[in-house]
Amino acid sequence: MGSQSAGFTAASYAKVLNRGAEVTLIEKRPYGLYHPCGIPLAIRGDVDFKDLLHRSAPPGVKLICGTEAVEIDQESKKLRLREVSSGKESLISYDSLVVATGGKPVRPDIPGIDLNGVYTLRTVEDGEAILRRLHLVKCAAVVGGGPVGVEVSFSLAKRGARVTVVEQMPHLLPSMLDPDMSDQIAKKLESEGIQVICGEAVSELVGKKEVTGVIAGRDEQPASLVVVAAGVKPEVSVAECSGIKVGRTGGIQVDDRMRTSAEDVFAAGECAETKNMITNKPVVSFLASTAMAMGRAAGINAAGGNAKFRGVLGSTVVSVGDLTAGATGLNLQSAEQAGFKVVSARVRVLDRPIYSGGEHLLVKLLADSGSGKIVGGQIIGRNGVAEMVDLLSFAISSGAAVEDLRDYEHCYMPSISDLIGPLQVAADALIRKMG
Amino acid sequence: MGSQSAGFTAASYAKVLNRGAEVTLIEKRPYGLYHPCGIPLAIRGDVDFKDLLHRSAPPGVKLICGTEAVEIDQESKKLRLREVSSGKESLISYDSLVVATGGKPVRPDIPGIDLNGVYTLRTVEDGEAILRRLHLVKCAAVVGGGPVGVEVSFSLAKRGARVTVVEQMPHLLPSMLDPDMSDQIAKKLESEGIQVICGEAVSELVGKKEVTGVIAGRDEQPASLVVVAAGVKPEVSVAECSGIKVGRTGGIQVDDRMRTSAEDVFAAGECAETKNMITNKPVVSFLASTAMAMGRAAGINAAGGNAKFRGVLGSTVVSVGDLTAGATGLNLQSAEQAGFKVVSARVRVLDRPIYSGGEHLLVKLLADSGSGKIVGGQIIGRNGVAEMVDLLSFAISSGAAVEDLRDYEHCYMPSISDLIGPLQVAADALIRKMG
Repeated sequence: MGSQSAGFTAASYAKVLNRGAEVTLIEKRPYGLYHPCGIPLAIRGDVDFKDLLHRSAPPGVKLICGTEAVEIDQESKKLRLREVSSGKESLISYDSLVVATGGKPVRPDIPGIDLNGVYTLRTVEDGEAILRRLHLVKCAAVVGGGPVGVEVSFSLAKRGARVTVVEQMPHLLPSMLDPDMSDQIAKKLESEGIQVICGEAVSELVGKKEVTGVIAGRDEQPASLVVVAAGVKPEVSVAECSGIKVGRTGGIQVDDRMRTSAEDVFAAGECAETKNMITNKPVVSFLASTAMAMGRAAGINAAGGNAKFRGVLGSTVVSVGDLTAGATGLNLQSAEQAGFKVVSARVRVLDRPIYSGGEHLLVKLLADSGSGKIVGGQIIGRNGVAEMVDLLSFAISSGAAVEDLRDYEHCYMPSISDLIGPLQVAADALIRKMG
Repeated sequence: MGSQSAGFTAASYAKVLNRGAEVTLIEKRPYGLYHPCGIPLAIRGDVDFKDLLHRSAPPGVKLICGTEAVEIDQESKKLRLREVSSGKESLISYDSLVVATGGKPVRPDIPGIDLNGVYTLRTVEDGEAILRRLHLVKCAAVVGGGPVGVEVSFSLAKRGARVTVVEQMPHLLPSMLDPDMSDQIAKKLESEGIQVICGEAVSELVGKKEVTGVIAGRDEQPASLVVVAAGVKPEVSVAECSGIKVGRTGGIQVDDRMRTSAEDVFAAGECAETKNMITNKPVVSFLASTAMAMGRAAGINAAGGNAKFRGVLGSTVVSVGDLTAGATGLNLQSAEQAGFKVVSARVRVLDRPIYSGGEHLLVKLLADSGSGKIVGGQIIGRNGVAEMVDLLSFAISSGAAVEDLRDYEHCYMPSISDLIGPLQVAADALIRKMG
């Protein structure tokens, strides 16, 4: 059920593990896998929308598109399907089932949300519709300053629109970055001509038939196009109405093998709960990389194998032109909420020696002062950010202490890296602060 | 003794740890620290030679240049110094001493080695002399296809010379890469017009007063400029004649706190032995990053602190234009020599999705088939190579299994990274081969 990162991956692995199994992918959309993270890139013209579609099924897997699952009968182990175009229903049997129904964009319940020109951003069709309207308008607004909001604001501005982005938290990218890091992204957006409003909720979308503005705080900002990037919530309606347990996060409850409360029913991706690797608390992750990893475990287990999924750190990167922001693990706020006594250090370093054209990197590291273990990191810069976030993610999931990060063997070549690695400089600063 | 990566760092850390200590750096050269790894970049014109010199001492440290240490008197704890220009000698006392005399380039004992136009490449002055001659000649040869030989070959060719590089081992970069990886670098050099000869030793340098060619195998290659990049050996003459123990590697024997056989005498950098972290065998490392880390430990311990150095993996990157090759840990040959039963996998992957302009990366991973632990990795590509080598280095030194590399949380954003990380693809391929 669902042919996106989690479902597609689950089907692939199920088939690879068990060559004799009959694996069917049921997908509501008229096509299989697509790449949602590429949509802001397509809006700004860096990639083509058509390249974001991936029409073929995994080898040996039957893909049924344009068909939604409407009910799971746990007793008879049958799935009731409905063809989207005709409404025609049918039943298919399963030995094991993976629910990968994904997420749906949050549409805040505010006046004007249904006006023409107001879009959420989830599918390729959403992206195409936004781009079509973009060609007709001058002013646009983006509701939400998370990763999608930041990327799409940049895309709209690149296309020539006067853009306002509104984030109700006091700073951009609040689930990724601390304020002293996200400031850099706000400045970058502003340097691209984007108006950044933080700490104000959008209370209303203004307009008669067509949207003409957004109310953020007391002021109205003109906008003939509004992209609502207010987050995603798990799509669990079929699972829920079929009696499968849903957790407090809104995601389907699963164990570390992706098993739901129903026998032989697994769940993976944005519709399923997992746990944060550091806090052990249940969370829903909306990252494609995580969905794939969960899908892999679900597919293997559904096909009779035994794979565990360890949980998530939330490793995320956002790029705004030549600047990339990345983060993994906990930030100051989430670490304190989880009860950690956090020590942090922030350093500005060069990614290469200055004589070799080095560019600035801003690196912030967070550690638990009790155990000395790294609990999070944030990086902003031009080169190597994603790879450094990966290193931090690896380090955190291996339970590394800050000393391990200072002392690892970094490779140096002045044309591409400096003598001491940026993460090592940050680790050294953090160790000195920890005393 | 010695103000290069190890000595300079040792002095800095000694002073930071013990503010009251009187710290003196004795340096034979007329200036303090310089950046040898930048010299090939300066030869090709990417950086200025003058930017490679760093004339100031660490804060609070006294730097005596143009003066060499000639003897260590262990009994009286005195160091005999000699001024290079005048030959004037003096004595200074020490409470503790760090020997950081570095290395010296290997000059093979072959006919013609002393001809005009034959250079080793170690100091800024070497680099400047090579560049001066380069402006007068058409053909150049490089003896040795290790990291320095490869980088300098590219530099000479960039300046318009017809370059031949000769490596006596069957492939380039033999201590870093396996043949199936180093082939890519040979092809890249050839595409730059460089003639690559492997598996032949240079037996003679031809010429009367000025060098005119090199004999590699049976053939003579024309060369009015020859750069000998045949490796480095530890400079231990002062230590040795002062009765300090030297190991079979040719480096001063030290323990994991950089203590030599002489009381209160420490050694660090290219003049000192360390151990390979995987094999536990003694090695000498010629990397600046390692020298710094050893210097840090030596400086802290010399000032009364307690710092350990864990050994080396040999994490190295070499860049040839837009292509970077990096490696860490053991390669096939060194792993087999160390008695590992190695399984390896090599994958060609994209660093970003193809629709987002992805470039190829070649990744090779080696694991010990007994323990399933990663023992080495090699990467060739255009983006993020150094940072991925760092991740591998971190993983190996934390004792990671191949599964840990497959399962870590990779961050994804189509503009800068693909859905599955290149190291994860390689780990997955390796796991499948391990069965």
